[in-house]
Amino acid sequence: MSEVENTSFKNCLRRLMTSLEDLEYEEATSQLAALYPAEIARLLESVPPKGRTQLWLNIDSETQGDILKYLNENVQSKLLSEMNVDGIVKATEGLDMDDLADIVPVLPESALHNLLLRLDYKHKNHLKQVLYYPENSAGGLMNIDIITVRSDVTVRTVIRYLRLLKEMPIDTDQVFVVDRTYQYLGSIYISTLLTNEAEQNIDSLINKNLRPILATTNDNEVASLFEKRNLISAPVVDENNQLIGRITIDDVVDVIRDEAEHSVMSMAGLNEEEDVFAPVMQSTKRRSIWLGVNLITVFIAVFFIGLFEATLQAKIALAILMPVVASMGGIAGTQTLILVTRGIAMGRVTTSNLKVLMNKEVAIGFFNGIVWSLVISVATYVWFADLMLSLVIALAVIVNLIFAAFSGAFLPLLLIKFKIDPALAGGVILTTITDVIGFVAFLGLAALVI
Amino acid sequence: MSEVENTSFKNCLRRLMTSLEDLEYEEATSQLAALYPAEIARLLESVPPKGRTQLWLNIDSETQGDILKYLNENVQSKLLSEMNVDGIVKATEGLDMDDLADIVPVLPESALHNLLLRLDYKHKNHLKQVLYYPENSAGGLMNIDIITVRSDVTVRTVIRYLRLLKEMPIDTDQVFVVDRTYQYLGSIYISTLLTNEAEQNIDSLINKNLRPILATTNDNEVASLFEKRNLISAPVVDENNQLIGRITIDDVVDVIRDEAEHSVMSMAGLNEEEDVFAPVMQSTKRRSIWLGVNLITVFIAVFFIGLFEATLQAKIALAILMPVVASMGGIAGTQTLILVTRGIAMGRVTTSNLKVLMNKEVAIGFFNGIVWSLVISVATYVWFADLMLSLVIALAVIVNLIFAAFSGAFLPLLLIKFKIDPALAGGVILTTITDVIGFVAFLGLAALVI
Repeated sequence: MSEVENTSFKNCLRRLMTSLEDLEYEEATSQLAALYPAEIARLLESVPPKGRTQLWLNIDSETQGDILKYLNENVQSKLLSEMNVDGIVKATEGLDMDDLADIVPVLPESALHNLLLRLDYKHKNHLKQVLYYPENSAGGLMNIDIITVRSDVTVRTVIRYLRLLKEMPIDTDQVFVVDRTYQYLGSIYISTLLTNEAEQNIDSLINKNLRPILATTNDNEVASLFEKRNLISAPVVDENNQLIGRITIDDVVDVIRDEAEHSVMSMAGLNEEEDVFAPVMQSTKRRSIWLGVNLITVFIAVFFIGLFEATLQAKIALAILMPVVASMGGIAGTQTLILVTRGIAMGRVTTSNLKVLMNKEVAIGFFNGIVWSLVISVATYVWFADLMLSLVIALAVIVNLIFAAFSGAFLPLLLIKFKIDPALAGGVILTTITDVIGFVAFLGLAALVI
Repeated sequence: MSEVENTSFKNCLRRLMTSLEDLEYEEATSQLAALYPAEIARLLESVPPKGRTQLWLNIDSETQGDILKYLNENVQSKLLSEMNVDGIVKATEGLDMDDLADIVPVLPESALHNLLLRLDYKHKNHLKQVLYYPENSAGGLMNIDIITVRSDVTVRTVIRYLRLLKEMPIDTDQVFVVDRTYQYLGSIYISTLLTNEAEQNIDSLINKNLRPILATTNDNEVASLFEKRNLISAPVVDENNQLIGRITIDDVVDVIRDEAEHSVMSMAGLNEEEDVFAPVMQSTKRRSIWLGVNLITVFIAVFFIGLFEATLQAKIALAILMPVVASMGGIAGTQTLILVTRGIAMGRVTTSNLKVLMNKEVAIGFFNGIVWSLVISVATYVWFADLMLSLVIALAVIVNLIFAAFSGAFLPLLLIKFKIDPALAGGVILTTITDVIGFVAFLGLAALVI
């Protein structure tokens, strides 16, 4: 974020925090009045839970509805749980069907029931259709606010029809052409309607290049299609080629953001929907699992140190220096791991080019091993004046860096084969490998020569 | 990516790799023919440099131009350096001005000179304007393919004008209203033109809500504006409120992708423009720097171990267990660090809510310290049957987890204050802190009681 935007947001938040600390909730709520729903959502996520709930209950229903879609899941469900059924129904009845569908899983049973009673037949059907598909599929992303036209009319007829509609759904860059049975035939960009003569037949203007997206398509693939073809919106069809909705770029941007957040957050075993201000006990429990996993892996590593107790006893300098060997391997391995994991996620690395990549990474590991083992052995000699120790540590560093590169390149595809997310588990497993190899190479070599 | 898309890309890449290994470059090039430029770019990034250059030189100039914008900077400049001046000019002369401006810094001097000679006065002026602003600003992102209209005409007149144009630039969702001196007055959505009567005055339809973006605005702020207001395109003005271009959502999606890539890659000291298949020596040099930084920090950490040589000598179990204390601190601290760093990047964490956040994180560290120090001390007792050792390690883990939480929360804002990127330097500094505190707490306590 830039300085300017940052500063204005900072000031908003500072004022808000002050009002909340002084328990002036009405004053605080009034500060939100002029802001966009997305900005209010960001502010709500930036204040501690108590003030957040107070603010939320002071916001009018319609605005609450607009804000909901910008909140992360944990905050969403917490705030909904603080509302009564009537409030929830009022806040959510005006939402787009795709946004409503996202919230349905966190809605209390009674609120959902009341909400469904209020929806008319058409909307209820549409909601059912969106809910029928998984949240992370094209069907779950789509909206049903499509404009359809027939192919046997002229531009003039279509424009007359659009004037009757008075306005179009936002992000409408194309209208869709269907036949009598709602089979998808193609689309017409609205810019085409404006740049062609009124007598022109729709038939001759249909853009047949844009293949519709099947509702069961995975959301990351949808994002990749949008990026590849620079789309603003795209039609969604069911397995019978019937047009059932469209996906717009704003929902795709959310998919891209979420994928990126997931990659970063899962490196520390965190969830991308993590609320920065989640209650202490809830966070303690969630983080605890990751610490437990790490504890197991570190005990595996130190078990290997334990095997060399006698060697350590004989030369205590080994105990002092062993973190150096383990750490250099961990860093080098993580570089390869992240490069390959991102390469796979972005579709640049597959099994067919992995071998070339692995050779390259191992070569880098070898050369960096040579360079840094020289530096490390000199530093070791200066510190301990022990030539044998210098040689042992140099060799151990080279061995560990080569293994680290190999493991970093190999591990992600192996994990994917076992259906394990490499962004989540890769780092922990890799550093266990580099720790074990680092300790065993260093202490094992030392045991041999000392 | 989904299984389907993944599979089709995998097959493409496998076929391509086979052709390249067999040195059948024409066969390989023909495999690219039916693909989108973005897909070809991805394939090029997925093959080793030698085959990549051969493929590239077989692609026709116009397609080369379309592909260039999808390539990462390192690959871009490598491929351009393999072309002759004439080829570069042919490939780049059809590019949008914003895409051309991105490439200018990596163009050879002579190619740039020739390219400028071929551009007409209008285009040369536009290129100058885009180049005048930094690449990561609204001015650097903008394109100049805008449609402008005057405010004193009717919808009919505008539609007649658009029909004369025959087509609109892609992603045109609005035309801009300017006065005689090109001052920005507002915009008209083209959907508005379609849903209003032909006699309606443009004046009455102007959307004045959309404030134009100043050309000097930072690109991350532009992305945040687009997301906040769900924009497809937005007008860009200079400091005199003169309309000079527009930004479209596809360029904003690139900004979002880049920001996300940066966060992930810089955790391992990698550049987000890193070429997966960069030459070994080049990669060795780049990665080397990060390993050197890490070497310094790990020597700082082991220096503190060295202070307790006598204690280690007296009880070798301390040497075996010390990685456990350091590692638990490192993991817990990294969780806090990533949460806070992402919170700052997403604008959810600022100085005004940091104190509340820090209290929460320290509390989590304390509680998790209690839980896991219990487990660790039992494991230690089972292994070494030494009650004092169990007590010392438990206490050291609690101390380290509390300091880790504190450092993880405090460090990112401190680094920003010193203009250091927390995504890049945060992890290294944090683990140095948790290593040092872990070693000193564990060995220091042991020295006191043993």
